[in-house]
Amino acid sequence: MGKDSNLKIVVGNRFSMVKENHRKSLEKAVAEKKADRQMVPLCKFVSRTKDFFTSSSCAGRIILLQLPKNENKLDASFHRKWHRKVREKELWQGIEADTRGELWFKLDSFILHIGAGSLENAKKILGCMKKAGVRRGGIIVAKPGKFLVEMQGTQSIAFPVKAGKEVLVGKEFMRYNLERANTKLGQNYEMLKRLEAVFRQELK
Amino acid sequence: MGKDSNLKIVVGNRFSMVKENHRKSLEKAVAEKKADRQMVPLCKFVSRTKDFFTSSSCAGRIILLQLPKNENKLDASFHRKWHRKVREKELWQGIEADTRGELWFKLDSFILHIGAGSLENAKKILGCMKKAGVRRGGIIVAKPGKFLVEMQGTQSIAFPVKAGKEVLVGKEFMRYNLERANTKLGQNYEMLKRLEAVFRQELK
Repeated sequence: MGKDSNLKIVVGNRFSMVKENHRKSLEKAVAEKKADRQMVPLCKFVSRTKDFFTSSSCAGRIILLQLPKNENKLDASFHRKWHRKVREKELWQGIEADTRGELWFKLDSFILHIGAGSLENAKKILGCMKKAGVRRGGIIVAKPGKFLVEMQGTQSIAFPVKAGKEVLVGKEFMRYNLERANTKLGQNYEMLKRLEAVFRQELK
Repeated sequence: MGKDSNLKIVVGNRFSMVKENHRKSLEKAVAEKKADRQMVPLCKFVSRTKDFFTSSSCAGRIILLQLPKNENKLDASFHRKWHRKVREKELWQGIEADTRGELWFKLDSFILHIGAGSLENAKKILGCMKKAGVRRGGIIVAKPGKFLVEMQGTQSIAFPVKAGKEVLVGKEFMRYNLERANTKLGQNYEMLKRLEAVFRQELK
């Protein structure tokens, strides 16, 4: 066999290995209920295709994020995290609980990582993305045998609600924003469903 | 010449043509002062390299965005747009002026598009991104002779300030957020400078 054939086998093995590892991680996450419920059908489907796998992903969420005063994102911690619509009462319980530094209210869209073994297959994912109407995403890793596409929804709300012990926002304002956030979260999950439908049409 | 050599020439020509078109667009935008001032040195440097070009980009901004009631982003319009720090007075003039639908206050990070002629060169851009500390970005177009990397800053603030004629926010809250937005905008422009420095080291 020539050099090219050998390379193809090495690259093919790398992909199979990476795909198998990610399949196991997904199974474990699902079994331990650590995978976001809204993402599981999509991830399971992709994991069963021949040419693709999913890596770390988030289905989208409403959070209260605690930022220490130096505002280093690495030190940020989740004060509250919901992967579902949130009620006013639980939001305020979160805001009024003890927190340190600055507290932010955020609606984060989904973020999804899909792996493939070749540039052609990575481009297939970009095509699905477009077809489903996902506008933000691209190939973030491009190595022989390992390509990774990252994509994200573009729905977003983000602002500080508390500085130290001082609450910066009123009830009316938060009621309005929570309603917006809940609506956007619903739209975000709809987008995930559209994406899954496109994957089921296009990926083998 | 073999088929491969012919293909190489076609692909090479495509890249030269695309690069030249983008160079002209950039020159025109700079001459007409339509290019964001903070982005111009970076774009000019990239445009003078042999293997890369820049496409549509935004340096980062503070905006008041008008959303019609159906909330279709395609119908959104800029009510105010600043590519610099904003004073409290001009912010409130913007908020209190006539608007329709919902008005959002937003801090948008930079978004930059870099083109290359090959996957190898597109990967070089991904490497520069990482080196400069830009965490979000990937290859969004991958065609023979035309690769496009999109990257974005991750600083963000976004919330509604007005619904119809009703102002939803108070002076104190907006003072706090404007100060945060101005700081983040400064950090965003610093990131652009770091990115330019890395490009100057790494790209020929």
